[in-house]
Amino acid sequence: MAQKQLFQANLVYTTGPETLLTLPQAYVAVTDGRIESVSSALPPGFEKMTVRQFTGGFLIPPFTDLHVHAPQIANIGLGYDCELLQWLERYTFPEESRYQDLAYAKLQYRRFIHLLWQYGSLYSVVFATIHRPATELLMQLASQAGLAAYIGKVNMDRNSPAYLCESPAESFRETVAWLQDWQRDQARYGAVKPILTPRFVPSCTPELQRQLGRLARQYQLPVQSHLSENREEIAWVHALDPEAENYASVYDQAGLLGQTPTIMAHCIWNTEQELQLLRRRGVYVAHCPTSNNNLASGIAPVARYLREGLNMGLGSDLSGGHTPGMAEVQRQALQASRLYHTLLDPQSPSLSLTNVFYLATRGGGSFFGQVGSFEPGFSFDALWIDDAGLDAGPERSLEERLSRYIYCGDDRQIKERWRAGQLLPEPFKP
Amino acid sequence: MAQKQLFQANLVYTTGPETLLTLPQAYVAVTDGRIESVSSALPPGFEKMTVRQFTGGFLIPPFTDLHVHAPQIANIGLGYDCELLQWLERYTFPEESRYQDLAYAKLQYRRFIHLLWQYGSLYSVVFATIHRPATELLMQLASQAGLAAYIGKVNMDRNSPAYLCESPAESFRETVAWLQDWQRDQARYGAVKPILTPRFVPSCTPELQRQLGRLARQYQLPVQSHLSENREEIAWVHALDPEAENYASVYDQAGLLGQTPTIMAHCIWNTEQELQLLRRRGVYVAHCPTSNNNLASGIAPVARYLREGLNMGLGSDLSGGHTPGMAEVQRQALQASRLYHTLLDPQSPSLSLTNVFYLATRGGGSFFGQVGSFEPGFSFDALWIDDAGLDAGPERSLEERLSRYIYCGDDRQIKERWRAGQLLPEPFKP
Repeated sequence: MAQKQLFQANLVYTTGPETLLTLPQAYVAVTDGRIESVSSALPPGFEKMTVRQFTGGFLIPPFTDLHVHAPQIANIGLGYDCELLQWLERYTFPEESRYQDLAYAKLQYRRFIHLLWQYGSLYSVVFATIHRPATELLMQLASQAGLAAYIGKVNMDRNSPAYLCESPAESFRETVAWLQDWQRDQARYGAVKPILTPRFVPSCTPELQRQLGRLARQYQLPVQSHLSENREEIAWVHALDPEAENYASVYDQAGLLGQTPTIMAHCIWNTEQELQLLRRRGVYVAHCPTSNNNLASGIAPVARYLREGLNMGLGSDLSGGHTPGMAEVQRQALQASRLYHTLLDPQSPSLSLTNVFYLATRGGGSFFGQVGSFEPGFSFDALWIDDAGLDAGPERSLEERLSRYIYCGDDRQIKERWRAGQLLPEPFKP
Repeated sequence: MAQKQLFQANLVYTTGPETLLTLPQAYVAVTDGRIESVSSALPPGFEKMTVRQFTGGFLIPPFTDLHVHAPQIANIGLGYDCELLQWLERYTFPEESRYQDLAYAKLQYRRFIHLLWQYGSLYSVVFATIHRPATELLMQLASQAGLAAYIGKVNMDRNSPAYLCESPAESFRETVAWLQDWQRDQARYGAVKPILTPRFVPSCTPELQRQLGRLARQYQLPVQSHLSENREEIAWVHALDPEAENYASVYDQAGLLGQTPTIMAHCIWNTEQELQLLRRRGVYVAHCPTSNNNLASGIAPVARYLREGLNMGLGSDLSGGHTPGMAEVQRQALQASRLYHTLLDPQSPSLSLTNVFYLATRGGGSFFGQVGSFEPGFSFDALWIDDAGLDAGPERSLEERLSRYIYCGDDRQIKERWRAGQLLPEPFKP
């Protein structure tokens, strides 16, 4: 028999990049974890149900973190005097190598999952490391916490330190073993699924890239990687493959650019030609403003991307980004976009509050299907924002209270987290 | 008889823009609220004293917020879809007009002082409103909380809405009455002092500016205002006074630019000539990166200012800035400076972690004298940072723990606040 639930709350959500809805004390009727209706009056068929009321504050859809490196959690806030390539070598690679130790992985990955829960990123797309056992552990922990996620075992077989470099054959073999483990045991993994994760062109041989492209087709798996984050990185890609038309086309030739659902992180310095390709293939751009600010990578012209119809969401990019908090990521997205307008291109539009809130919820959420809104058919997922501590005052509109939460809020205002109709209890309390 | 105190703690502080000191478990000997010595062994003359030990975490000097608008506290996080002039009209001026009501002023100013305490800005330089009674109330509240501050009754006698505009005579008369009130009752104001506060050139007639310049000399009072925040604002100043050489020289001609100690907020778009004048006059630049990001004002080239020897500190600039938290202001200063380097001038240096920490503590603190460091002769002021919740791990150096605090921390890590040898209890608990 269908499980029915009825909720009443102030709702704040988007139905598109330009459309913010604020519904005071609306009813949400839910069947089997999916929204059946949203209405100002009691919906038919639900009249006799107990209403779960969210008194005070408001509900928003949960955040989707579209790009985050779980094994860099111990490095947040460190090393931002470097740019990308130096930072990888000094900070990132040594830390990631520790994840061959499952006990260390368990300690840190429990912290990571707790942070996702704490900051309301109930959906996420995650880089793990090259290590299969630790990656499987991370997937199990995410599932135990009731989160939905795509998690990838990373592939790296060149230009990486010896302690973190696979052979092409080993990388492929371990990837297949990982996928088979998952297939055998899908029930245990809940809403957590694998995603193919070549780190980026400089650390994957063309041979491995092609093998992963074939795997993507064979298993119908999504793909994630990095694209055009840093100018030095782009020059390196060109030096490695001078024949390629551009950075994006390297992935494309390997079957890793939208042949299956694909996320490319950063996309700061792409050419027009690359952007057309991304759009044609429906590739998702994961915009990571905190990381791009910290590592001085640049500002991606994302207001234009959005207007031109690119698929897009936001990423915390730990530990290039310093925080898992999507409120801070959203405000830095707003700031960066407005500075781009002032400093680099007065003709360009800049992101509005509605735009970034859309990106953080429905935009990124759409990678998971009907996620990130309170529309009928969508998964009933929500963060209950109790903004009393932000002193927004009762005379403020729900839109102003959202603005205050995005600019001044953090995890402290998230009072409850719901996914697929279930209240998520605190996992792995530190 | 002199009052002596002895402390032991991990110390993290600067002695100059380029010099970060990290002293594990050092002793700080204090006499009458001033530091006598800092040493690794028990200092002579203090052997028999009880040591107050700060176990775990580390001490840093408190923050100085060099530019903040107290009456805009109810507006934080709102209205950042505007640029400066539109934002003043729509958000700022209507809110400031409410401070003619002392009951409203009391409610909000208690919240403001609590926030300064909460976020560790134990020194601040503050804009109030044009209203004398509310300004005096704010000064009393700051003093009751044990904070040190310069607080200014604002002067505005042109280009302001009628409800927030004084006549030149009225503005002058009220300013003198305010100064006399303060002089009569100095003991009651503790470490809180007046500062002359012409809002900015567009809202002060030349006549009023000159009168304030004379008052500054007569009472030997410091001065604060705004300079070159926004390009539209600069064009307006030029239209108002086409004869003036530049924006800074308008203040200069009125005796408001370093003839007494002076702070100019923002200084984003200054000409070389203006910068030379600021440097010659020892004017302090209050750099406000969060505000400049939110209102898309631009990026001030402050790494160059620092190298060229300009006096400088950081400002939260509520509510152009969205947070009173100087940790977030520091990280946005770092990010903005590094983006300036990447996007606008690859030849320019960028701020280091040491640079911004210096600006937030000793740089801004020097406006108050020997403030913002743990050097002998300095006021013993400190924030006890308990970073256990940031999981920095015991293997991290104190410098790395500072970096993590600046990038990932907020008010939650500030466990105790000390000023002039006194532990400050929570004031005006909400």
